[in-house]
Amino acid sequence: MAPSVAHASAGDRRGGAAAWPLYACPVPQLRLALAQVNPVVGDLRGNADLVAGFVQRAADAGAHLVAFPEMVLTGYPIEDLALRASFVEASGQALTGLARRLAADGLGELPVVLGCLDRVEGARDSPGVPKGSPQDAVAVLHDGEVVVRQAKHHLWNYGVGDEIRYFVPGSTANVVRIAGVDVALAICEDIWRDGPSAAAATAGAGLLLVINGSPYERDKDDTRLDLCRRRAAEAGCPLAWVNLVGGQDELVFDGDSIVVDDDGTLLGRGEPFVEQLLVVDLDLRAAGAAPLPERAGELLLARTRISDAPVPAYAPAPVDIAARVDDRGEVWQAIVLGLSDYVRKNGFSSVLLGMSGGIDSTVVAQLACDAVGAANVHGVSNPSAWSTEHSRSDAAEHARRTGLNLRTVPIADLVDAYDKALPGLEGLAAENLQARLRAVVWMALSNAEGHLVLACGNKSELAVGYTTIYGDAVGGYGPIKDVPKTMVWELARWRNDAAAGRGELPPIPENTIAKPPSAELRPDQLDTDSLPDYALLDDILDDYVERDASSKDLVEEGFERDLVEHVIRLVDRAEWKRRQYPPGPKISTRNFGRDRRVPITSAWREHLP
Amino acid sequence: MAPSVAHASAGDRRGGAAAWPLYACPVPQLRLALAQVNPVVGDLRGNADLVAGFVQRAADAGAHLVAFPEMVLTGYPIEDLALRASFVEASGQALTGLARRLAADGLGELPVVLGCLDRVEGARDSPGVPKGSPQDAVAVLHDGEVVVRQAKHHLWNYGVGDEIRYFVPGSTANVVRIAGVDVALAICEDIWRDGPSAAAATAGAGLLLVINGSPYERDKDDTRLDLCRRRAAEAGCPLAWVNLVGGQDELVFDGDSIVVDDDGTLLGRGEPFVEQLLVVDLDLRAAGAAPLPERAGELLLARTRISDAPVPAYAPAPVDIAARVDDRGEVWQAIVLGLSDYVRKNGFSSVLLGMSGGIDSTVVAQLACDAVGAANVHGVSNPSAWSTEHSRSDAAEHARRTGLNLRTVPIADLVDAYDKALPGLEGLAAENLQARLRAVVWMALSNAEGHLVLACGNKSELAVGYTTIYGDAVGGYGPIKDVPKTMVWELARWRNDAAAGRGELPPIPENTIAKPPSAELRPDQLDTDSLPDYALLDDILDDYVERDASSKDLVEEGFERDLVEHVIRLVDRAEWKRRQYPPGPKISTRNFGRDRRVPITSAWREHLP
Repeated sequence: MAPSVAHASAGDRRGGAAAWPLYACPVPQLRLALAQVNPVVGDLRGNADLVAGFVQRAADAGAHLVAFPEMVLTGYPIEDLALRASFVEASGQALTGLARRLAADGLGELPVVLGCLDRVEGARDSPGVPKGSPQDAVAVLHDGEVVVRQAKHHLWNYGVGDEIRYFVPGSTANVVRIAGVDVALAICEDIWRDGPSAAAATAGAGLLLVINGSPYERDKDDTRLDLCRRRAAEAGCPLAWVNLVGGQDELVFDGDSIVVDDDGTLLGRGEPFVEQLLVVDLDLRAAGAAPLPERAGELLLARTRISDAPVPAYAPAPVDIAARVDDRGEVWQAIVLGLSDYVRKNGFSSVLLGMSGGIDSTVVAQLACDAVGAANVHGVSNPSAWSTEHSRSDAAEHARRTGLNLRTVPIADLVDAYDKALPGLEGLAAENLQARLRAVVWMALSNAEGHLVLACGNKSELAVGYTTIYGDAVGGYGPIKDVPKTMVWELARWRNDAAAGRGELPPIPENTIAKPPSAELRPDQLDTDSLPDYALLDDILDDYVERDASSKDLVEEGFERDLVEHVIRLVDRAEWKRRQYPPGPKISTRNFGRDRRVPITSAWREHLP
Repeated sequence: MAPSVAHASAGDRRGGAAAWPLYACPVPQLRLALAQVNPVVGDLRGNADLVAGFVQRAADAGAHLVAFPEMVLTGYPIEDLALRASFVEASGQALTGLARRLAADGLGELPVVLGCLDRVEGARDSPGVPKGSPQDAVAVLHDGEVVVRQAKHHLWNYGVGDEIRYFVPGSTANVVRIAGVDVALAICEDIWRDGPSAAAATAGAGLLLVINGSPYERDKDDTRLDLCRRRAAEAGCPLAWVNLVGGQDELVFDGDSIVVDDDGTLLGRGEPFVEQLLVVDLDLRAAGAAPLPERAGELLLARTRISDAPVPAYAPAPVDIAARVDDRGEVWQAIVLGLSDYVRKNGFSSVLLGMSGGIDSTVVAQLACDAVGAANVHGVSNPSAWSTEHSRSDAAEHARRTGLNLRTVPIADLVDAYDKALPGLEGLAAENLQARLRAVVWMALSNAEGHLVLACGNKSELAVGYTTIYGDAVGGYGPIKDVPKTMVWELARWRNDAAAGRGELPPIPENTIAKPPSAELRPDQLDTDSLPDYALLDDILDDYVERDASSKDLVEEGFERDLVEHVIRLVDRAEWKRRQYPPGPKISTRNFGRDRRVPITSAWREHLP
């Protein structure tokens, strides 16, 4: 048996093989560690500690190379912090300080690839750009030094990305020779465009390493895997993709790190929504002796040597491919992570919300229990004259099943006091009044006790303005603001099923899921009094809000003409309220907030044919 | 006397000369009309009517060329409307429809230059860009046709500009021959960068016409004039700069159109903050016979001929240069225009605000009187147990002087009802409660009567979080949100002086200006209990917020170390509240909102040396 057969392509190793013979081998091996970690924006010291801890873990795991996500040292996205010179300066110092610290800790030998905030140093990389301009960069640390810095080639400037506002793109593609393998580098958006993967091929790279700050949205995991496969094939070598984990205002980073071979074989995949050190053993093409071409397309090529000698042959670890989660479970986890990180990273330890016994506040309460623990969840029931008995009993039942803290503050006397001060309020004014008097109670308790208030509005309500501004819309965070109403019910059922599957009591009362939705702001009120059935409404909203469908498109799709006009009108008129709504985790293709940015003042009306 | 002397350079005409002899003349004359107009975002039909009306006025004034601002047909900025295919399609139809309509109205002979939303048609202008991609363009209409379309070369993508998110830049610089003069075209940001003015010179243009959507900020008028002079010198010909007027959410466009000769002489200037047809007679270089070079730097050159023959000599009109307004008057006008347009363009006719007799609410009430008329201003006085007598009497005096509508709704009983429902509230919770109970009153009256609620917070308060969210921060628009507290007092004095100068009663009570500021949320409370003196605070905020000064910079400037740390900490912690604050007119270099975009979740802390 020829030695080379013992280390066939990485794809052939699937199924695991714990005890390869330890030949010296012409196909260099490399143990790659991908650290999908959860930094905090702006916490340069804490993030450096986080990286150092994972470098130690990677070293302990015998890794020959460890990679961290995009902008891990600063957190991501840093928004206008990039324009603050003191922050850019401190970030640069954090990077060089980290390199020295790792060496001092005896970890200098292990090459570390990580994302950082860099700045133009007047180098050839960005001709004509003012020195000091910020860059989104990947750095390689070795032996106490920053041995390579490469700025992102393609900046992300659509959807929730605004990178051209901040960063100057780079024009150099580096390969770094590590253990006899030339490792090419890229940053997130780079592989969503043409160029960088071809440059890796031109440079003869044995591995394309891509560091990412790629926020979660539904179905994106499949898209990413397809993309990684396609770019690995173009690069002609395995591709390793490492992503951030954690919540940052409206964004949730889901990890989901990926390693694929150039034939598309999945060689490793991280768990979604948790920190993890994903260790993957690779058999890679040895770096050639040919000189590096000067350019690949518009990119300049550069090579840095860290180590030429392949590592001694060793037994690869079993392949680690995390199981996939279904769509509803993924959404649930995304929201839980977004919420728990918002609470933790902003210095809170508990949350408070109004609990009506309805589906929205119950699902938010359950998400909160999963995010911060039921003991830290404070529900407030605020029955009014129009509240049904079940609104109290369903909330109480949910509290009983979960152990969250529920108190009751009736609002009838508060409404009476206002009725005396402002006689004659009726209709919408009277309905909104109740919602606002409840919110004043929540905010008073928040001020007195220090809880973060959660807003319980869903995406369908926000879309059509079926919320009371300064009423049920108050809060510091809106966990389900990007979840359409129909999906709120699905999430409730998913959560109950998941509990049942673990042999636990399903936490959400069946009646909460089954009863028809009502704001309970007047007698016998139902949402369907003023809105179409939510299944129909969500269909229209999905087309109009997320896909920019025109009214003509919608009518051609078969929706009723008057309904289309009515819904679009409601959406267009509610923008002013959405602007004042708190942030919440993006789970869709286009959330209200960072993603969908329409003017408040706008006379544009879709015209029907 | 040689005939050419009769039409010396335009600069020599300063001082006006009503009756020149009507020689046929080798220096072509041109009567240029700049239409600084106020379109409504999205109102394609209304904006086309607006343009048609001003074209008629220009024709009536004998103009040979009329120019309108950037994106006048769609309004500006359209934000994500640019991503909606139905809107882009309708905008294109509005443009061709306008060209046909002008011809049908007998106005086809007059060349019309205007800004519009265009899209890539697969032309040479944007190689590699998907057909249909939106562009920010200048079009020339003549004889019922769109004879030239030119996309903006340099997109505005800093500060409040996000154009790279939406638009594909163009690479062609056109000259249009009108009455024997080659007129070069540019759009706003184009002249803030190098390239387009040099292209005008290379093309031998006799006039550089720049259409703009340039929002107001303090001191920008001088910057613009300097820029126009510099670019005119580079182009080697007069430069005409026409700008939008009007409010659009956070932005106020101030008109201030400018015509300068290439030697820097001011040949005409529009009034700020009002619609105007500025008519300027120019003597221009005749177009040469030389062929057009293919390129000027990175721009392709193109020429379109509308008319080769110079217009018959005529007597130029007197030079029209609007008087400048002082800084405080300019700010006042900007806010009044921003507010009145927000009210009108969003379909309101009246406003409502809480009136405490303090400086902020009084100045907002006065701005509202100037914007929508005192009869449409509804003040609400909400005295509490801690309100001083003067808080009522000063508000009443302001109402008496202006004629605005003031009513009183005491909140003591409302506070009592909450004290019973939530016993034991104290400190901040008790203070905020009062502010929120007032806001519930305002919102109830707004719902019942249809007024737009105005938030009265100033920039200093917003910066340090000295506002009660869902309390005094409620409203659809915040007129003074970008005005530092010290400037609020200055504006009050300016407004009173302006009234006195016109022989009117100064509207703002002297006591309102003179008394020390207090939130009146507890007995004998003064703002200075928890904040430094506003003059000092505003100095620090100006450096930290608008200039990104570091704490080190501030201490080196001489501010006290603990104070710097305290203020920065307050600013950093208040971001979540600012996100939920209503929009208000930008008057500074960097407003909270579109301009300053920092993460809510951020652990970055400035480190003192």
